[in-house]
Amino acid sequence: MPPLRSPLDLARALIRCPSVTPEEGGALALLERVLAEAGFAVHRPVFSEPGTPDIDNLYARIGSGGPCLLLAGHTDVVPPGEPGAWRHGPFEGAVSEGVLYGRGAVDMKGGLACLLAAALGFLDARGRGFPGSIAFLVTGDEEGPAVNGTVKLLRWARERGERFDHCILGEPTNPSRLGEMIKIGRRGSLTGKLTVHGRQGHVAYPHRAQNPIPGMLRLASSLIAEPLDGGTAHFDASNLEFTTIDVGNPATNVIPADARAVFNIRFNEGWTAGTLGAEIRRRLEAAAGSTVRFSLDLQPSNAPAFLTRPDAFVDLVAGAIEAETGLRPALSTTGGTSDARFIKDACPVVEFGLVGETMHQVDEQVPVADLDRLTAIYRRVLDAYFPA
Amino acid sequence: MPPLRSPLDLARALIRCPSVTPEEGGALALLERVLAEAGFAVHRPVFSEPGTPDIDNLYARIGSGGPCLLLAGHTDVVPPGEPGAWRHGPFEGAVSEGVLYGRGAVDMKGGLACLLAAALGFLDARGRGFPGSIAFLVTGDEEGPAVNGTVKLLRWARERGERFDHCILGEPTNPSRLGEMIKIGRRGSLTGKLTVHGRQGHVAYPHRAQNPIPGMLRLASSLIAEPLDGGTAHFDASNLEFTTIDVGNPATNVIPADARAVFNIRFNEGWTAGTLGAEIRRRLEAAAGSTVRFSLDLQPSNAPAFLTRPDAFVDLVAGAIEAETGLRPALSTTGGTSDARFIKDACPVVEFGLVGETMHQVDEQVPVADLDRLTAIYRRVLDAYFPA
Repeated sequence: MPPLRSPLDLARALIRCPSVTPEEGGALALLERVLAEAGFAVHRPVFSEPGTPDIDNLYARIGSGGPCLLLAGHTDVVPPGEPGAWRHGPFEGAVSEGVLYGRGAVDMKGGLACLLAAALGFLDARGRGFPGSIAFLVTGDEEGPAVNGTVKLLRWARERGERFDHCILGEPTNPSRLGEMIKIGRRGSLTGKLTVHGRQGHVAYPHRAQNPIPGMLRLASSLIAEPLDGGTAHFDASNLEFTTIDVGNPATNVIPADARAVFNIRFNEGWTAGTLGAEIRRRLEAAAGSTVRFSLDLQPSNAPAFLTRPDAFVDLVAGAIEAETGLRPALSTTGGTSDARFIKDACPVVEFGLVGETMHQVDEQVPVADLDRLTAIYRRVLDAYFPA
Repeated sequence: MPPLRSPLDLARALIRCPSVTPEEGGALALLERVLAEAGFAVHRPVFSEPGTPDIDNLYARIGSGGPCLLLAGHTDVVPPGEPGAWRHGPFEGAVSEGVLYGRGAVDMKGGLACLLAAALGFLDARGRGFPGSIAFLVTGDEEGPAVNGTVKLLRWARERGERFDHCILGEPTNPSRLGEMIKIGRRGSLTGKLTVHGRQGHVAYPHRAQNPIPGMLRLASSLIAEPLDGGTAHFDASNLEFTTIDVGNPATNVIPADARAVFNIRFNEGWTAGTLGAEIRRRLEAAAGSTVRFSLDLQPSNAPAFLTRPDAFVDLVAGAIEAETGLRPALSTTGGTSDARFIKDACPVVEFGLVGETMHQVDEQVPVADLDRLTAIYRRVLDAYFPA
């Protein structure tokens, strides 16, 4: 097999590996081969946890000195949905009119291919003797429960004495155009379940029952009546969304016993899951007074809010983007969570990758020009990070 | 078979007929035999409707002149639930320490037995030549959909030229003690389904979605913020109860598309289903403004509010109760609906029967003394209604 070098060839090869979480699908084996050929020391730890599938992971490093720049990502992808709905097969890697189609094209086999192509190009140009190290940390468990992935891989690396100075995570970060947006942090996520307790009875005799629904209306309203905060310099205001309210009573002449609601909060650096949970409880208790009986179940949160303070590294990445695209990227903390929430405990991390518009959708796609341009951006980062 | 005469014997014989709606179970056949032996002309019309089971009914009359006093009830019963949970078999008719047990003991085979025993006693004392008529109108479809029961039986009787002057419906009306309460009307019932429409999306991007739950909280709250009315001379305030709110969204990171709620209103004579529906819509529109999209589905209501104005007939019944029990009964319009809502179109109707405490429950029961006393009350009504 001829060596894979271009980001398009690497991306197509990765898309052809059907690595829907938790399947490895050949994707990590492909990375292992390419990285080993380029001189990386490659490890393939498999992690297990009762109740979850075993997951393949990959860690590779070239160089032993500092600084060490970590390039991070995942090879697993979400399911393709109905394959027949795709213009081209989701695992085919078809290119049509300058656009590469396939599951993972932007999230994030495409981004991973660019990281890899940039590193290979850098090593070709500079040889193995550059002053520092490049490491790859790639998991097969980002789209799934994320239990046997980045968290355990970072711990495994730490226990081996691996230290990182900065990290680029190649997740898709641009809303519509390459170069628009770097993510320098993420909001935290906290999910809570609220139950209001009443007493069942007949609707014609409400005084003998206690309808939990008016209490639920009052308590739920109290959680959205006032904003949680006004946002911070780098974060939007924290936001609470109710995702469901359920009673499940089919009888129109029966007052139900209980009402249940679930909410999810995306919160900024002004809160921890602990302080936020206390605020939620305070609001509920104030609204409930002595008349509404409720219980609140806050799920353990492994998604704290975090921010990588804008500094020289963020400037370096932003400068590489601007030099290549002409756009000065926004430093954003919006959107869902990512594995950056785990990596930030190891070193400062910024996220920059492709345009996310089609991620998780049918006909996920990326212009081949974007692959080339993102590779050039990553290469500029490497060149600037390891000055000759 | 010896003739059945006492209310206890009649009630036990009826309880032994397993007439769970829609089964006739032998109960109407028993009534037919007893009434025919006493000289009644008995009819057993069977009514049908596509999609519902055929239902046996009974109409009987003795005498041809006026006034005609209608004695009404039903022989069908609700299911016994877990028969093993009963102290005595639900269709056994066991008597233990002066108490009769069984499904229908108070709702309303017991009450029907008392009506029958009172009529038999009256005829024994007065003969068939009393000035007026007594009619029995008994359905087997009161606890079920009530489609092939009293409504059609009244129409059948009207088409035969039958006219009634007053009616006693023997449903259980006393909360805890025989003699406490007559029902002289019933509140109406209106059920509505409220749907608030939003747009599905990811909780991390709420600006791209529209969460229907805050709108539901606002609209639902608007329906219970202010009382519908303050009640009338004979009716409690109209009352709205939400019976369920459902979204059914299992994903804690997804903003749902729709939220649905169901409410039931028990309303007094100040409203019709039409005026009440308009008020509900007015409140929802005011709360929704231009921001909340909703739809309201009001179910057709066959349960209007009605009142039998307190008059000489109500006084006659109340007087019989007081003479026998020493209690002056309250004239109530509380509780659920009954077939009185149909009978009131044929003639003034009052409801009086046994103590309802155990109705629809395991170990439904009635003291034998209550059966004797209720029979004596009904007998006083007959004696006063048809003065010698």
